[in-house]
Formats: sequence, structure tokens, C-alpha cells
Amino acid sequence: MKFTIQQSTLMSSVQDVMKAISSRTATPILTGMKIEAKENGIVLTGSDSDISIESYIPAESDDNVNVENIEPGSIVLHARYFPEIIRKLPENNVEFEADENFRVTIRSGKAEFNLNGQNAEEYPQLPIVHTDNSFEMPIALLKQMIKQTSFAVSAMETRPILTGVNISLKDNILNFTATDSHRLASKEIPVEADGLAFSNVVIPGKSINELNKTLDDSEDTVEIYVTNNQILFKTRHLNFLSRLLDGNYPETSRLIPNQVKTVIYAKTKDLISTIDRASLLAREERNNVVKLSTSGQQTLEISSNSPEIGNVTEELTVTAIEGEELKISFSSKYVLDALKAIDVEDVKIDFTGAMRPFIIRPTNEEKILQLILPVRTY
Amino acid sequence: MKFTIQQSTLMSSVQDVMKAISSRTATPILTGMKIEAKENGIVLTGSDSDISIESYIPAESDDNVNVENIEPGSIVLHARYFPEIIRKLPENNVEFEADENFRVTIRSGKAEFNLNGQNAEEYPQLPIVHTDNSFEMPIALLKQMIKQTSFAVSAMETRPILTGVNISLKDNILNFTATDSHRLASKEIPVEADGLAFSNVVIPGKSINELNKTLDDSEDTVEIYVTNNQILFKTRHLNFLSRLLDGNYPETSRLIPNQVKTVIYAKTKDLISTIDRASLLAREERNNVVKLSTSGQQTLEISSNSPEIGNVTEELTVTAIEGEELKISFSSKYVLDALKAIDVEDVKIDFTGAMRPFIIRPTNEEKILQLILPVRTY
Repeated sequence: MKFTIQQSTLMSSVQDVMKAISSRTATPILTGMKIEAKENGIVLTGSDSDISIESYIPAESDDNVNVENIEPGSIVLHARYFPEIIRKLPENNVEFEADENFRVTIRSGKAEFNLNGQNAEEYPQLPIVHTDNSFEMPIALLKQMIKQTSFAVSAMETRPILTGVNISLKDNILNFTATDSHRLASKEIPVEADGLAFSNVVIPGKSINELNKTLDDSEDTVEIYVTNNQILFKTRHLNFLSRLLDGNYPETSRLIPNQVKTVIYAKTKDLISTIDRASLLAREERNNVVKLSTSGQQTLEISSNSPEIGNVTEELTVTAIEGEELKISFSSKYVLDALKAIDVEDVKIDFTGAMRPFIIRPTNEEKILQLILPVRTY
Repeated sequence: MKFTIQQSTLMSSVQDVMKAISSRTATPILTGMKIEAKENGIVLTGSDSDISIESYIPAESDDNVNVENIEPGSIVLHARYFPEIIRKLPENNVEFEADENFRVTIRSGKAEFNLNGQNAEEYPQLPIVHTDNSFEMPIALLKQMIKQTSFAVSAMETRPILTGVNISLKDNILNFTATDSHRLASKEIPVEADGLAFSNVVIPGKSINELNKTLDDSEDTVEIYVTNNQILFKTRHLNFLSRLLDGNYPETSRLIPNQVKTVIYAKTKDLISTIDRASLLAREERNNVVKLSTSGQQTLEISSNSPEIGNVTEELTVTAIEGEELKISFSSKYVLDALKAIDVEDVKIDFTGAMRPFIIRPTNEEKILQLILPVRTY
């Protein structure tokens, strides 16, 4: 096995694949990275058995030669040392060679590394995704959907299904939903999916966050393949495969109130900074609880109180307040997470009373929804 | 007590003083920050009893009004909340007020914080430094001396005196020395000190690093006052006071070899990157040990070997090698620390044989010296 490659090209693939490799794994060979040289390019593979990432470096692309002097073969190298070695090589030209005893030689400039590799045949085969259940969407849009929902997954293992993001597709509408049972984030977008439909697909929160970090901010699209227990995200040079969570995702639509008693229209930035200030004194024992009360048509009073430390009160002039007067308490963390995820200038908050969930949405959009349960205050 | 101040002015002083405040302290009131309003300005004080920092905001400076509406008084506020509150205030104008019950009100824009303060009379008096033993030096030069020596202090409490930097002054030459008994860093510079002399002044490593972080990169000078058990660094707006370590600092000059068998002249950057690469495989069990051997007049071979992981060898062309052939092993961490601290383009390394300490210096300067003990390899 042998090839010659540019350090920068190899490094960028190594970094992608590293995102799937964990130093804590029950299968020792998975602490390594599989490197395969094929006639038409190099494939790097990393996996922690939940997530697997394959990165492909074609020998030639767009009239560029990326890999030369290929002699096919494969090897596994310990991921603890290999990426640092590649990163610190003295010159851009890298010669990579492995012999039949799994000894690897990496040469660059006057530096020569000899590393003990492992037999690639011992590396587990990745599941092969056989399905026609696929659709395509822009990478940028997928990343946005992840950012706007994945923060709301549960961090508790008491209901494992809630530690994932639920993905469903119906009538060419793709929906992402996450909830930890105190709050819920949901976003939907139209896709071209030729009538493909699925509902109980739940991607582990960790997988979807790694996916978000792995995908470039490019204008490319990603193909998504769904099976019973796996989901594959396929871009030009990358396969990102994740297992799905077992179990039934709860029906969440019934949580969404269908009547509204008070509506607040406000500038997102003003709300964020006022709630953030009020939360400064509410950080610990009081569970980040902040109080909000309306006063007239345009004024909110946002406050918090911690008997030992002190209290804070701030008036905020908002765009408009409609409906009944309101006094409500909530977790400032949940509301700040939601406002930051929505990421628009103007928001609308629908309340159905002090003890009912409220909904934060962009003023002019119904496709994203952040639902939050209030806190009972004593 | 009362004053009005700009948020940015107050924040920068708060940040300086925070460097002395620790949340773990045997004296609870020291988790707080003392705020004093005087006729002519505001003084903030923080202390962890090893280090104390006072920051002074004059009411007026250079025709600017910094503090207005002063009603003298003082209060102590918990440092866990106060800095975050100041940092996040909505407007630049800040009104600060404390009543006789130690209730503090901070107003900015439409936000009002009410905080429970503590009686400033319970805050310990800082030791007053009564001495004429003072000299002055540029801040930039003091910071450079700290950076070039303080990394070499011992992290072990087995010989507490070695956890500090030894400062001595004699014949208008100021010397900083630090050693952990495996390596030694020393730097001296001329100062105007009117014949002032001292030798056994040892500043705790932690204090001197905090001092380095607290001092601005300005063109100002710092006045240094030395007593038996305290050292005071005084700049225009800041007093930084540290206790000194008890005990006798060892005589280090006898460690420095007075003969030389091999001299290597090299580019610092090349040495750093080659040794750094060789150390990649030597990180753990082998204690960062890297081997160096000379070959002819201009070639070094730098290598390391870790039976389980592999080995690395690199040839480096250097400016010149004079004297005997040499094979030596050393801690790559110590050599890299020393080369980075020296911070010049060209270095000279004097060796007195494989088992004797070697000395790294800038090629054209004798005022800084990095001494390192080699490692016996088997």
C-alpha cells in the first residue's frame, strides 16, 4: 500500500473523520482510523459504532491531481498520534507507505515516521445502507434546522427517546422536533421528496451535533437515506452514518395550545439582553427563574429575586402587547436558548395564561416554533 | 455612599481587581470586592491574602471627568455577581449607591439591581508597605523577564522555595531566576536603582503570573517596593501586592558549567518544529524524551522511539556545530519551553557532554540563560 498526497488535503479529511472517533470504546480497533488506498482515491474511516464517518479523497478532481503513485491496500492507524503527525509535517508533500507487517512509513521533507499499524481486515464493516428512501436538501438548510432544534433534546437518560431529534417527512414537508418535556423546539421546511414519508426516525442528539460540525458551510446539497435503524447523510466527499434511537417518539402536536390569551411582539435582541440581565441573580438555587409581567400596551417588567444576593427589575418597551394582562415565571435559560435559536429580529410570543405553555415564533413565520412550559412560583 | 461612573471605566478596573479574588478562601469576606468612594476617586480592592490588587479610578484625569456625584463611603460586594452585572449593564451611565444597611443599588438605563453588601470595616486592612527600597523599570521589560523565567518554577510543593521566582538586585543589575531542579531559567537587565541591593526575594510563581496578566502592555513604568515579606508593584492606577516565600533560595550559579565541549548554532524556529515533531511519539510513558546526535559540521539527527507506537527520525541542517561529537537525550518539553521563552531568531547551545547540563542562549546575548539537565537513556 502506498500513495503520495498533499498535507493540507489529507489533514482536512483526517479532521472530518476524527469527529467520529472516540478514545473510549468497547472495540479497541475503533480507537484507530482506517486508511484505504484504491485505484481512484483514498478513503478514511472513523467510527464509534454510533456514528461512522467516511471521507473520500478522489485521485483527481476538477483537473487537480490530489493523490499520486497509488498502490492499493489498507491499514488502521491509532488516531491518538496520526492526526498530530500529519498536522505537524514539515512539508506539504507526504509519502505514505504500509508493508505486509502493518508497518507504516510517513515521509515529509527530512522527517520520517515509522508507526505500528493494525490489520484493516479487523476493522468492522460499516453497515451498508440499502434503500431507495432518499431525498436531497441544501446543506445550509439542514444545518439551520439542526441549530434551531437540537439544543432542546433531553440531557437525561430517564426517557432515552427524548435524547434524540425526531425527524419526519410527509407530503413533502420535513419536520425536526426536539423536546426535553419542559420545552420543545420544532421546525419544518418543504423538500422535494417524491411522496416519500416516514415519522418515527429519531437521531441521537450527539450524532446530529457532530453532523452539524462535520458539514461545511457550503452551497452543496446533502442526500439523506433513511432505513429502520440507520440514517446516512451523503455529501460529495463524505458519508456520515448514524444509528437511530429505538422506541416511539411521543406525539407532540397535542402540547401546542390552540388558543391565545396574551400576545407580545418584541425585538429579539432587547428581550435577550433584558432577560439575560435578570437571570444574573437567578443562576443557581432559583433554577434560573425570571418573572415577566405586562403593564399596559407596550411595557414589560422583567425581574428576579434571590433573597440572599438581591433583586433586579427592568422595564422593557416592546412593539405591542395584545390581550389579557399577564404575570408569568419561566426558566430564563429555556427562553434565552429559544430566542437565540430563532435568530430573527422580531418575535411574537403567544401566552395562554400563567400556567400554560407559551410559544415563541418569528413574527412573520409559522415554520419554526419554540414552546416553553412556565414555572410555578411560590 | 454614592457615585456616577461610566460602565467601561468601572469594568476595566473590576477586571484587574478580580485577578486577586478567589472563590476558595478561608476568609469569607475575601470572596468579595471592596469598593471605596473618596472625594478624589474610587478605589476597588481584591485579595486572596497572597495577592492583593488595588485599582484607583481618579475622579478627574487628563481633563476627563471619570467619576461624578461622589458621596464618600465604602462597601463590600460579592465578586461572584458584581462583575457580570457591571459587564451586562444596558447603558454606559452607571449610578452606584449604598445605604447604611449595606444595601447597594446599581442603576443603568431602565435596569435596577438591588444587592446585599457587607460592611467594609470587616474587610482586612492591606499591609502598608513602609520602605524606601524601591526602584523603577518599564512595564514591558518586567513582563518580558517574567515570561522568560516564570515557566521554570517548580510545580511540586516538596521544596516550596522553588515554586517561586528569585529576584535579586546588585550593582544596578536586576536578576530573575527560576528552577525546578531539572532546568533553570535566568535573565538579567541593568536598572537604575541607586545602589539598592537585595538577594533572597522569592515571589510565588502564581503571584508573578497574575502580575504579568494584570499589567498592561503599555509604555509606562512600574515602581517596585521590596520589604522582608512583601513586594509591591505600583503603576499609575494599580497597586499589586504579593507576599514573598519564606526560606533561602539555593545558590544556583555553581550549576552553570564553566567549560564547553560542543556548541550548536541553529535557527530557533527550525529547532522548535523538529523537536516538536520528534516529541509527538514521546509524549507519555517515555517522559517526552528526545535524542539528539551531531553528524559533521552542520547536521543534527533528532529522533525518538516508543516501542509500542513507532519511531521518528529527522535530520536538521543547522548554522554550525563546533567541538566534539555529541549524543544526548533530553526532555523535549523543557527544551521547547526554553526555546520559546528565549524568543530570538538564532540560538547557541553549549554542551559539556551527554550527562552534564547544557545551556541555551541567544547567539548574541549573555543576559538570558536557559539551563537544562539531560536525561539518562537506557
